[in-house]
Amino acid sequence: MNYDFSFYMPVNILGGKNALQNNKNIFLNLGKKCLIVTGASSAKKSGALDDLIDVFNEMNIEFAIFDKITENPLTSTCCDGGKVARDFQADFVVGIGGGSPLDASKAVCVYATNAHIINDGIYTENVENSPLPLVVIGTTSGTGSEVSGVSVLTRENGRKQSISGKNYYAKYAIADAKYTYSVPFRTTVSTVLDALAHAIESMFSKRADFLTQQFALISIKMIYPILEKLNNTKELPTEQERDTLYFASLYAGFALNKGGTGFPHGMGYALTEDYNVPHGIACAVFIPQFLTEAEKANPSLFNDVLNAMNSDKNSAEKLIYDLCDLQLSIPDERINEYVARWETLKNFKNSPTEFNNKDAGCLVKNLFK
Amino acid sequence: MNYDFSFYMPVNILGGKNALQNNKNIFLNLGKKCLIVTGASSAKKSGALDDLIDVFNEMNIEFAIFDKITENPLTSTCCDGGKVARDFQADFVVGIGGGSPLDASKAVCVYATNAHIINDGIYTENVENSPLPLVVIGTTSGTGSEVSGVSVLTRENGRKQSISGKNYYAKYAIADAKYTYSVPFRTTVSTVLDALAHAIESMFSKRADFLTQQFALISIKMIYPILEKLNNTKELPTEQERDTLYFASLYAGFALNKGGTGFPHGMGYALTEDYNVPHGIACAVFIPQFLTEAEKANPSLFNDVLNAMNSDKNSAEKLIYDLCDLQLSIPDERINEYVARWETLKNFKNSPTEFNNKDAGCLVKNLFK
Repeated sequence: MNYDFSFYMPVNILGGKNALQNNKNIFLNLGKKCLIVTGASSAKKSGALDDLIDVFNEMNIEFAIFDKITENPLTSTCCDGGKVARDFQADFVVGIGGGSPLDASKAVCVYATNAHIINDGIYTENVENSPLPLVVIGTTSGTGSEVSGVSVLTRENGRKQSISGKNYYAKYAIADAKYTYSVPFRTTVSTVLDALAHAIESMFSKRADFLTQQFALISIKMIYPILEKLNNTKELPTEQERDTLYFASLYAGFALNKGGTGFPHGMGYALTEDYNVPHGIACAVFIPQFLTEAEKANPSLFNDVLNAMNSDKNSAEKLIYDLCDLQLSIPDERINEYVARWETLKNFKNSPTEFNNKDAGCLVKNLFK
Repeated sequence: MNYDFSFYMPVNILGGKNALQNNKNIFLNLGKKCLIVTGASSAKKSGALDDLIDVFNEMNIEFAIFDKITENPLTSTCCDGGKVARDFQADFVVGIGGGSPLDASKAVCVYATNAHIINDGIYTENVENSPLPLVVIGTTSGTGSEVSGVSVLTRENGRKQSISGKNYYAKYAIADAKYTYSVPFRTTVSTVLDALAHAIESMFSKRADFLTQQFALISIKMIYPILEKLNNTKELPTEQERDTLYFASLYAGFALNKGGTGFPHGMGYALTEDYNVPHGIACAVFIPQFLTEAEKANPSLFNDVLNAMNSDKNSAEKLIYDLCDLQLSIPDERINEYVARWETLKNFKNSPTEFNNKDAGCLVKNLFK
């Protein structure tokens, strides 16, 4: 057994009930002007935006709201957000939401202090100036973006692409699961499947180590029985289950941050781009095949995963397909295009077997003929 | 079950075989002049100092060596180190060693940039300027100082006292267990007992949470069977066991960093100050009583600890006493003085029961009459 690990996750995670109010002093050192980056509605519905505004009023912090972040945020939208932050002379940014607003807020911080970076330039240009400091407030149990140095944006050509590194970590993450309580059933399922995929894919990553695997297994153990219940009852999780799911998504985020994702995430992007499939479902639908590959490559680790699920492979596959509930028909020409596009997909290299773009084409054909 | 957690551990841990050589590029951004802070011999014996000098020669980094750190380092020694760093115009510091040199190197970084802080002033004065950046290289499986924002120093009056906060984190930790391979038997036992005490004490801390408890349990699981074997064979651990012990000490450090220590550490300081008992043994000798208190306060968590040990309470107590192998006779007057001194000891408040300074006096009497 090799216990060696490396670890870097500099975000100060402030967790628990009323974490925002209890830790409001963090804002004292961040400045007097804040740009709040969020989507059109979830920040409000979750209660996080109102709570934040209360704190800002109490502390005389001036703020502006940039609420133009859509799902799968465009680099151009984030670049606009950066300009708004500059014009407002924001000292710091607070991102509120699920994966899209949080990832976008990271990019806004980079654009804000680097006016020379325009739109897709973020993937190639040098970050010359330190990004604005960022506080994130998660409102879904999925992305793990709170604890990762990763931002997934959508390029001007419509393709999703991630960017990562030290410039993409928040300074603080407010981790209060109550902000997930208003998430509807279907979004809950999709986001939790995303967290499960993070845990499972990172388990078998080439960059995984003993520590990331412990995080992943803890996360799977927390998530899986609740997913089974959601599938049986089709009812919203209880608040206590929501709490468990939220912190599980952060554990999966720890694992993801080092391990990265395998082919389900790489392939899932295409279903989101072209068929508007929610991100978590788009990735999770490839998890059964990923588990098949994982079993071949590392039966012992695969057994650890099944033990954490307290399930067997057939039941796990059925549960995931049931929850995904994805009816799609993808024409052959499109599949051929995917096979070509995926020739350079890095996620295959971070997956447990030699499963490649051609295998991926067959898998898509099997699932969505 | 409450899964909420908070977490902050900003050190970039670079782990694995040849971690120093493999990550030498970290020095590119740290500067051209380094003060190496270490003790008289272990940095050399471990091979870490030679490896570091090779890397510095390769990278044209100028260095000076401050090797005056003794066990239980004095604030005045660290203050001297800070002056040496200033005079040498060091851009950064590398600390090499076990707990004493690593804790001392953290203080040296603070003194170096804050000339107004003299000796014990470090406990009270404002840190006006950011400390010098610090790289630590651990050479014992014990302290966990590599991953904590804590430094334990000895005041001018001979009393040990800890200091903690954001100024006491290293920027990088090189985690290569090979540097522990030359540690002799008795020091290995003492340092590993220290790590075990960190894990057990932090488990029952008022500040513990689900995450720190997972770290602690993983650490106990890794350490305990090797301690059993060491006690049976009285032979040095194998290299593979050394690897396990080293990374276990870091896991315990994660737990310690949030949870802090209970009364065994608070009481243990006295045995070290007055009887020169090695730190790990001085703390661990109080762990059996701590486990008794833990069982009363939280039987479920206590069972988790026994399960991680795969042992029972009597065997665990016997193992710890055997390994401590401490023959001391402490006169009543001294014990009375301890009872008075411990009236304000914070560690009692971070312990699972109402166990207090008077109980502590009785315990010392029982153990060392």
